[in-house]
Formats: sequence, C-alpha cells, structure tokens
Amino acid sequence: MMTAQETPVAALGDILGKGHEIFIKRDDLLPFSFGGNKVRIAEAFVRDMKARGDDAMIFYGDRCSNLCRVLANICAIEEIPAIMIAAKAHGRADLEPFNSRLIRQFGVPVLDCESGGIAEAVDEAFARLRAMGRRPYYIYGNRLGTGNEAVAARAYAEAYRGIAAWEEAHGMTFDLIAVPYGTGATLSGLICGALEAGTPRPIVGLSISSRTYERAYGLLREGIAGYLREHGRDFDEAAESMIRLETRFNKGGYGLYDEEVEAMIAFMMTRTGIPMDPTYTAKAFLGLKHYLEEEGRSFKNVLFIHTGGTPLYFDYLTESGR
Amino acid sequence: MMTAQETPVAALGDILGKGHEIFIKRDDLLPFSFGGNKVRIAEAFVRDMKARGDDAMIFYGDRCSNLCRVLANICAIEEIPAIMIAAKAHGRADLEPFNSRLIRQFGVPVLDCESGGIAEAVDEAFARLRAMGRRPYYIYGNRLGTGNEAVAARAYAEAYRGIAAWEEAHGMTFDLIAVPYGTGATLSGLICGALEAGTPRPIVGLSISSRTYERAYGLLREGIAGYLREHGRDFDEAAESMIRLETRFNKGGYGLYDEEVEAMIAFMMTRTGIPMDPTYTAKAFLGLKHYLEEEGRSFKNVLFIHTGGTPLYFDYLTESGR
Repeated sequence: MMTAQETPVAALGDILGKGHEIFIKRDDLLPFSFGGNKVRIAEAFVRDMKARGDDAMIFYGDRCSNLCRVLANICAIEEIPAIMIAAKAHGRADLEPFNSRLIRQFGVPVLDCESGGIAEAVDEAFARLRAMGRRPYYIYGNRLGTGNEAVAARAYAEAYRGIAAWEEAHGMTFDLIAVPYGTGATLSGLICGALEAGTPRPIVGLSISSRTYERAYGLLREGIAGYLREHGRDFDEAAESMIRLETRFNKGGYGLYDEEVEAMIAFMMTRTGIPMDPTYTAKAFLGLKHYLEEEGRSFKNVLFIHTGGTPLYFDYLTESGR
Repeated sequence: MMTAQETPVAALGDILGKGHEIFIKRDDLLPFSFGGNKVRIAEAFVRDMKARGDDAMIFYGDRCSNLCRVLANICAIEEIPAIMIAAKAHGRADLEPFNSRLIRQFGVPVLDCESGGIAEAVDEAFARLRAMGRRPYYIYGNRLGTGNEAVAARAYAEAYRGIAAWEEAHGMTFDLIAVPYGTGATLSGLICGALEAGTPRPIVGLSISSRTYERAYGLLREGIAGYLREHGRDFDEAAESMIRLETRFNKGGYGLYDEEVEAMIAFMMTRTGIPMDPTYTAKAFLGLKHYLEEEGRSFKNVLFIHTGGTPLYFDYLTESGR
C-alpha cells in the first residue's frame, strides 16, 4: 500500500478572472486507487483500526463514494474482511457508477439500507463479521456514526504540514485555503493542522450538500474539539475563529448540479487539463469563485485542494453524453 | 501548461510472483490531461512547432488516441488552430471512447480517413490551415509521416535522466527497464537517453500491435539513428546492441485483448490500486511477465513505465460491464 505523500501544486494564475492567483493542490493524483483526499483519510482509518487491535472493516457511503472505493481497495490488498453499508442511490438508476463497479471488483459485500436504517445495518455488519471470529471496526465510530471524527481529521492535519512546507520551499504564503465541505474531515483536519502549527489563517469549506450552516457548524466544532482534546488542547477562541463555512452555493444538495457547474467542468478541463466532477470538486470550485467575489476580494494567493473523484468525472461524461 | 516533471515510482515487490522486484514509474500521473507518456511527447512536439516558427498543429491517431487528447488539450489552452486526422475506428461502434469525447470538447475538428488515405488527409489539413493564413506543423513530419521521429524521442531521452536521478537518490539500479512499444517514441527516447548518459543497459519494448519484429526493428533503428545524428553521434554498435523488442505477446494486434489481459487489469487494480488499460499498459505488463519468464530470469530490479491511458481504463470498464 502507498503511504500518503506530497502532490503537485498547479499555479493557474488568474484563471477565475477576478484578480486572484489560483493554485490547485492535486490530491487527485495521490498514487493509489485514483487518488483523492479519501486516500489520506482511508489510510488514517486503517491505521486506527490496527492500533485498536481490530481486524475487520465496516464502512458507509453511497454508491458513488470515493471513500468506500479506496477502503475496499485497501481491504482487498491487505485481505481485511469488510462490509460496505450503502445508502440509497442518487443519480440515474440505469447507470452503475464506476466507484460501485470497482467496489464490486474488490470483492466487498454491500448491505443496502434506507437513510433511516443505518444503525441497524451497522449492527448487522458487526454481527456478521463477529460470527466470522473477527473484531470489526466501524469507520464512523459507534452505531450512530459518532465518536471517530478526530481520526479522519488526522489525515489533513498531516497534509497541512505538507502545504506549509511547500509554501516555505516556494517563498510564498496562501492567503486562503479552500476545500470542498462534505463530511468535514478534510476541512477540520486542515484547521487542526493550522492550530497545531500555531499559524491560524483563513481556511474555508465550500459546502456541496444541503446541510444547514448551523448543523455544519456544530459538526465541524465537534470534530475540531475532539481532535484538540486528543492532543491535549482546548477548543478555544482561536479555534472558534477559524471556522469558515460557505453553504450558499450548494446547488440544492448532494449530487445536484446545474449548467453553471457543467460549464465549470468543461472550462477547467479545456483550459487547464484538470478534471473536476459535479458532486464535489467542480461545485466547490464554483462556490470558491462566488465566495471570492462576495467575501474574498482581499485574498491574493488562493489554494484550492483538489479532493479527487476521477471515477465521478467519467460518470459525468457518460451521463451527460459530452 | 505544465512542464514535464518527475512522477512517483511504486515499489511493488514480487507482484508477478516470479522472484523479481517490480517497480512502476507512474507517468500516468503526470499532472495534465490525465497524464501518460503522451504528455511528455506532446510537449516535445509543441516546443518543436514553435522552434520552427509554425503556428498550427496537425495530428493523426485513432478515436481513442491518448496523444491526440493531450495535443488537443494543449491547443485549446494555447489557442493553436489544429486539425486531427482520425484513423478508422476499432472497438465497439456504439461506444464513443472517452478520448474522442474529450477531443470534441476541446474543439478540435476531425478529418476522418481510411488507412490508405492518410497522406491525402494531411494535404487537405495543410490546405485548410494555410487558407486561414497559418503555418501548419504535422507532428509526424512530411505527408508520408516520416522525418520527425527524433522529436518525439527527445521527451523520453529527458525522462531517462529523471530515472537515473531516481536510482542515484535511492541507491539502487534497475537491471531492466520495460515499456509498451507502440509508435516507438518512448522506447527510442529511453535508449537514446541511456546512450547519451553513457550507461547502455537492457531496455525492452513490449509490442502492443501486430507490427512484425523486422518492421519494428527497422523503425526503431531509424528513430534512434535520427536522434543520434541530430546530437552529432553515429548509430554504432553500442546503439545497435541496445535494441530489444518483444513482439510475441501482442495478442493479435492493436486494440485486441483476451482473458489473460483482462485478468491482469483486475489483478493490478485490486492488488495495487493501479489502473491499466487493455490496449497498452495491461497488455505490455503481461508481455513483461512472459518476457521475464522466458528471457529475463537474471533481472532482479525491473522498472515498468506506466505510460497512462486513464480514459481507456474507463472505456474498458464500460465495455466489459465490470
């Protein structure tokens, strides 16, 4: 298996045409299983599983989940018994997403569940793996999916140090770091990394789902506080002041997109050779554009973390016929 | 536009189960337009076009050409007028390859031609671009497609120096370097790089098409001689002795594959998280396995160059329904 590593940073100049220098950190090129932020996060989960002495893996996500693809791939390589709990699908029913095909190929059994039935499905997955004599690990903690937020955050607290090292090596500073906000693991990790390094600075999460600002804020606060607690720190004013969330540009909810998102996908591929998908990266990058127009005029150097999703890019090409 | 850079080298241990340490250079992760060897090669063509004072681009390939995708993307970014000449398609007629969709999205007009009519199509493309007041550049040289072999070879002569630097940094030497053999640009480039560096060593091309050994040998010899001539050297015995071509494992010809290739694709994705496509990389990697069994038992450390083709991997998943 790979270990998380540095990824290239693309300098795109004023690609958004608004007077900002835009940089993209290509975490989509992490050299394992089509890359993405979920490679770093999946590795953090697997390390945590082993540290706890567990030996089987339960994960949850929808049919086009990047995290589930990466975890299933690691489990196939390391021969870790695993069960995926799959949320009800969104998207076209007649097209199986590439991530779903890959998860099947990796040989991980899938338990379908309705959105209200996750806890029961987690119970069932635990029971099945225990019946095999295994000690299962659920990536999100307990059956209600809480208690493990700090583990996922570790990955991007580490990645933050890589970003800081890049800045030092290139003699420059990013005035803003921007990242898609979905589960919150990447955003809270970056914030914790900045707090640990003693360099608080603007880091914004661009929401790609319909989670309200209040709910997102609460979850993020919890995740950051959990991480800090584990590292012997309090959630103080410095931490509080670092939470920046932009929920206005979510295009109606998870998996939904419009012509403006589609135009961004075509623009970025054609003008920079960088693929973005409609669910996460293109929606968030478009959100960044609007955020900069409305609140970020003063930021000169802006770093966007490309969190991956190459299979979703090809799903989009297939769906759209482009 | 990107400039060619170093890519990660994955250490896969004895992944082929034959007692060799296998390493894969991930040129599929070159950070532009889905990467691949054709990123380095396309950049060499564009540099050559500019050095000659030309300002329009003509390229030739089939509908799933990686090279044409990358060139079309560069031309879109740099606003270079371009025409693609497309060979008759292979593969399923009802599925448009992802590379073809991308080339359309990049706005490059396509001239279809039969395999006997390439020279006429090149003439027509020249005429069209000249009528726009442009000085067109055909990547393969004259209307018969010869005269430009040395340009493409430059890219991997440079990349060879990167490989040698990696070896030095890691205190080890590859006993064999292996690469898919299609147009010959990558193989001849690596050979010329080794000759220039004064470190002749085994570098083998695994053929992915039905070109005969004699024809392949002749083309390769021409390409290497052309490059050496440009760099003030003769094609001598040292150069002659470096040509290693394996044409036995081509599975019947370009674009053809069988269950053994399919098994290799699934094996590599599942056991290493590295995607390979049936037309180039998986076929050549399987060829490498057979080559090592038959002629390479003495090689300990073996480097395979992953020459990219991510869109072809997704074409394959679509075609095969896997």
